[in-house]
Parts: sequence; C-alpha cells; structure tokens
Amino acid sequence: MRTVQGVLEEALGRVLGAEPSLSVAGRTDAGVHASGQVASFGWPDAADPARLQRALNGMLAPEVVVLRARRAPAGFDARRSASAREYRYRIEFGPWPDPFTARFVWHRPGRLALAAMREAAGRLVGHHDFASFCRPAPPPASTVRRLERFAVTVVGTRLELSVRANAFCHQMVRALVGTIVAVGDGRIAPGAIPQIVAARERSSAGPVAPPRGLTLTRVVYGRRRRDDGAGGRPAPESARARDL
Amino acid sequence: MRTVQGVLEEALGRVLGAEPSLSVAGRTDAGVHASGQVASFGWPDAADPARLQRALNGMLAPEVVVLRARRAPAGFDARRSASAREYRYRIEFGPWPDPFTARFVWHRPGRLALAAMREAAGRLVGHHDFASFCRPAPPPASTVRRLERFAVTVVGTRLELSVRANAFCHQMVRALVGTIVAVGDGRIAPGAIPQIVAARERSSAGPVAPPRGLTLTRVVYGRRRRDDGAGGRPAPESARARDL
Repeated sequence: MRTVQGVLEEALGRVLGAEPSLSVAGRTDAGVHASGQVASFGWPDAADPARLQRALNGMLAPEVVVLRARRAPAGFDARRSASAREYRYRIEFGPWPDPFTARFVWHRPGRLALAAMREAAGRLVGHHDFASFCRPAPPPASTVRRLERFAVTVVGTRLELSVRANAFCHQMVRALVGTIVAVGDGRIAPGAIPQIVAARERSSAGPVAPPRGLTLTRVVYGRRRRDDGAGGRPAPESARARDL
Repeated sequence: MRTVQGVLEEALGRVLGAEPSLSVAGRTDAGVHASGQVASFGWPDAADPARLQRALNGMLAPEVVVLRARRAPAGFDARRSASAREYRYRIEFGPWPDPFTARFVWHRPGRLALAAMREAAGRLVGHHDFASFCRPAPPPASTVRRLERFAVTVVGTRLELSVRANAFCHQMVRALVGTIVAVGDGRIAPGAIPQIVAARERSSAGPVAPPRGLTLTRVVYGRRRRDDGAGGRPAPESARARDL
C-alpha cells in the first residue's frame, strides 16, 4: 500500500543515497489527511535542510509538500518528543456533498443535536482509560490518554470537531467522532458517556467515523501550556500531506 | 472527452428515457471548475424537479452535484437568458502548493505587484472590443463585451481575481488573468492596457493562465443592478460541478 511515510522515505532515499527510517508524530490511517504532520530521522552526514526540502517537493508536490525542514536538537524524535496532537474532523450535514471538498469531509446528511454533542464531548475531556475508543492492544500497551480539548463548532451546514490529546491510540479520533455523532442523532444519551468510558469495551461506544473527514492539524512540542495553542518548538521536518 | 455537460445529459437521459439537449450558461474549458453553473432544457412532459435532482445526484455526486432544480418560466434559456456571469481565479504565490486545493488553484510562486495589477484591472473594466483577449472568431461573431467588475484581492499567500461581465468569449477570463499576472511581474506596464485593448490582436495581450485556477461562481438572471450582486431569478437547474 502506498503511504505518505513510504513515499517520503523513498524520496529521501533518492536524495540521500540510502533510505532513512522516519519517526512520524501522528498516526494517519489510509484515507486520513494531515496539514501539520511532523517527521524526523537520524542521519550520520550533514544534509542541507533547504536543499532537502526543495528536492523532496520537486519529487512529491502537490500531493505531499514539505512545509519546513530543519536540523533538530540532539535527541529529538518527532513521535516520542511530541507533547500533544491536534486533529480536526469535518462533517457536511446538508443534503448534498460539496464536490470541492468531498475528499476531506464526511457527507452525512441530516440534523444533529448540537447541545447534546457538546455535552458529550465535554464529558470525554480528561485523563481516562480510552479502551472503549481504542482497538484492543495487548499489554503492556496502555489505552490511558489525556484528552485536553474536544470542541464542536458549526459553520453553515458543516460541523467541525477539534480534538487535542497528549496522544491518541489507534482509530481513537474516529471512534470519538462516531460516538459524538451517535449522541447527535439520539442513539446515545450524553449522560451515558461516563458509563461508556468506564466499560473499557470497544463495543460500548459508537462506530468509527469514515477516514476522509479526518485531518491531523498540529503536533505540539516542548512544555505544553494548556489550551493556549503555544509551545511548538522547531521541528526537523513538517509535511503537509494527505494519504495517497 | 468527458465533460460535465455530457455527463449531465447522459444521466438525464437515463432518468427521462431520452437525452435532452442542455443549454449551459457559462463556458468551462477542460480543467475549469464551476460552483454556480446553470443549465436548462426543454421537455414535453412534466418532470418532477425534486425527483430529477435526487436521481441525478444519486448517479453523479460527489463529482457533479445539482444544487437546485426547478421548472422555469416559458421562454427561459440558461445561456440566452443570462444577463451576467461571474468567475473567480485563484493564484497561490507562496513557495509551495497546498495539497488540499492544488486542483483548484494555480501555483505560481513569486511576488506580484498588487497596485499595478489593480490599476490594469481597472483599465480593463468597461464596454470594449475584447478581441485581444479572445480566440479569433469569424464574423459575424462579435468580441465586444461589457466587463462590469475586475477585483484583485489578497488573502495570505493567495491572490483572488474576480470578474463579472455580461458574457465572456472563449478563454477570455484566462487571457485577462494572464495579462494581469504579466502586469504583476513587470512584463506589461499597467499604462499599456488601453493600447493592448485597441490593438484587437490576441498577441498583444498576455498569455492564457492555466485552467485549474478558474471557477465559474455565479450566473445572473433578470434585470441587472450594477455591482450589487442581486437580480438572480430562479433558475431551472443549478449544478455545482467541476470538469471531470
């Protein structure tokens, strides 16, 4: 399967003479997009970041674009050094999809109960075991995460759900969105959220929302200051990319 | 070649039992998009517009979407009844393209002189023979048009050019944009615009801008009130579409 990581590694291999192994900050399943992905790799020789960026974009744009390339401080690792990830999920709830954004938006016609969705989202924020929203992971893998923000906004006939956590387990954002949508159409009561979390059973939460609506928008480095949107330390390589 | 008009006619033929011949308000060359296209057709039987819309969108969405479908007043013809067309052209002038909009935006890195572009655009507005911006047309076809608006705005690293005219001849919008860009990068002086118009020679103006940045945004019906954006009479069928 063609992936952004694979395409980037192959292109880096053509520039550097050998393929590095990338550390990538945020998970993106097939069909998921990224506008603020960060990736890093160790390399024994001095490579000029600006030259690398030009060469990569020359090969990969416009499908994959490297927005910034820098040398990183010693010990930096795009995935392990990240302190938070932000994702956005977009839902078009009008009767028809928009041809210009159909690849990046889930078209789900029909009204949703906004107040109930916001209440449920608020109950999910916090430090929890998110096993009900994660693919089962064998021990010692943990499904405990700190969900720092879960905002639901409406613009026209489009709903935007913005989440931020220290980290997300596999399919967690899409399971959170699917659950909030189930609250919005009345299948789940917002008051049931605490029991769903406590159950630690994937089947207790809502279904996984389709990948196309999801975009990784930002990876945060350095000491987090809660909810202020600051704290991003220079990263070695930032790719605005979508899965191919 | 697959076209939006062809795809619509074929889908209508499957719903109605025979293919109607569409009258389409605004020209869109291959690679050009439309968010406000209007098309009409004559039909002897009473067809339910809502049913037609659902059937067409069921076959064509999300590539082509019919936003509204109505029965038209007697004598209405989407192309002949239109009193004005509006197009928007988008240019990304930052160093890299945006993967999410690359299909709808011309990526042309490098600064452009905004004041000169606005001066040139202002000099093009009016009732002129636009032969310098049209593909040669054999008589009695005329290249006289009334250009009612030509606005140049900047948002971030993106330039938007908005034009409105009673009608446009073939490739006229892209020739106008190409000429304004040539003014922006110093190849044409804004003061040279009147001579370029007077020459009535395609070679006197700038090159044609690529199709991908162009979108037909609106077709106006009824008595125009100049520059107020009003005057749209209900149209029989409005397709938000892009060329396939």
